[in-house]
Amino acid sequence: MADVTDLIDSEVFQAFATYATIVLLKMMLMSPLTGYCRMTRKAFSNPEDVAMHAKGDDAKKYLRTDATVERVRRCHLNDLENIVPFLGIGLLYALSGPELDTALFHFRIFVGSRICHTFSYLVPLPQPCRAVSWMAGMGATFSMAYRLLSTGLRL
Amino acid sequence: MADVTDLIDSEVFQAFATYATIVLLKMMLMSPLTGYCRMTRKAFSNPEDVAMHAKGDDAKKYLRTDATVERVRRCHLNDLENIVPFLGIGLLYALSGPELDTALFHFRIFVGSRICHTFSYLVPLPQPCRAVSWMAGMGATFSMAYRLLSTGLRL
Amino acid sequence: MADVTDLIDSEVFQAFATYATIVLLKMMLMSPLTGYCRMTRKAFSNPEDVAMHAKGDDAKKYLRTDATVERVRRCHLNDLENIVPFLGIGLLYALSGPELDTALFHFRIFVGSRICHTFSYLVPLPQPCRAVSWMAGMGATFSMAYRLLSTGLRL
Repeated sequence: MADVTDLIDSEVFQAFATYATIVLLKMMLMSPLTGYCRMTRKAFSNPEDVAMHAKGDDAKKYLRTDATVERVRRCHLNDLENIVPFLGIGLLYALSGPELDTALFHFRIFVGSRICHTFSYLVPLPQPCRAVSWMAGMGATFSMAYRLLSTGLRL
Repeated sequence: MADVTDLIDSEVFQAFATYATIVLLKMMLMSPLTGYCRMTRKAFSNPEDVAMHAKGDDAKKYLRTDATVERVRRCHLNDLENIVPFLGIGLLYALSGPELDTALFHFRIFVGSRICHTFSYLVPLPQPCRAVSWMAGMGATFSMAYRLLSTGLRL
Repeated sequence: MADVTDLIDSEVFQAFATYATIVLLKMMLMSPLTGYCRMTRKAFSNPEDVAMHAKGDDAKKYLRTDATVERVRRCHLNDLENIVPFLGIGLLYALSGPELDTALFHFRIFVGSRICHTFSYLVPLPQPCRAVSWMAGMGATFSMAYRLLSTGLRL
């Protein structure tokens, strides 16, 4: 187990582990938030979910879409679309031996940008708040990908 | 290549590899299932897909949504939303040197919960079958994230 | 840091890093493409996005779905559904010590298939172009999963 211990002892890797876990936890909170919005707004997509709240004809009217629920779902999907590249590229980047300061800079920008993005999407704040926070996160991931491809391309 | 071999020889990592592969294979089966439902129910979303089944005006009526297809798609999306955090957090957790028994406990709960979730969603079983299986998976991932952040926080 | 350097020096791992980064960059380009289509076709899903283009009653009519925007979004979601298993299974496969040639064969097929898939989806090319490219990618991932489970199953 010596190697695994050494790997996890690398400060860059440990920083990646911390920031990746934080941003994944943030994303996971979108699921209960969707559930909460569905409950309070009574907007469901499955008949079996409505059964707990109403019966018969009354139930059918709760099988509908709601603007707030859809907003939370779009925010969640956008998280997925951005966090998956960060996880993949960030992990490979952390293993490619970057400077600790540079790596922390990238991880912090990304995680900060996703928190701002969620906040901007759910309040909602006027544009370009959401667009700018989305771009900051994309930029951090692109920058890590550039470093990866420029230092060790193996086609 | 000595280090890579040692890494993959760690029993916890090997267990993670097995369970992650199983749960990803389960998720991948949702794609052909969606395709199968689209074929049998003749509910497509792209004009070029319909062309294999019908022509002209007949084709347009197949560009529609179908309750069963949408159910499979929601199940697939829920898989994505839950399996991505498991992959990220589970990998970092497996590398943080947990006890084998504890790690196996987490991986088994998660994979079992996702199989129950899919089953509950597609049959469909009455609630709270789906809700409980979804929560068990979330709980396993949260517990691994807690262990990660409590043992090696590096901000 | 010796181990991390050794790990990243393994040719198979470096090949995985390169192909995973390429396919993730391809996926990330779907986000700005969606944005571009929303702008040119004036089809938005959030009121705050429309505010930059129109005011009052004029704004409401831009809160709509558009066939091209939905096509790009479906392509993006299909990417996510296929690239997530590739990242997870591919990473574990790269660490399981396969032959370099075999590994390269799998990675190239997968990345090639996803590029063909995007091209087939967005042009769009007649079926079965998209179906075949999707299947090639699934096949490559399944093949890596089979190798993983057949060499080191640890339940």
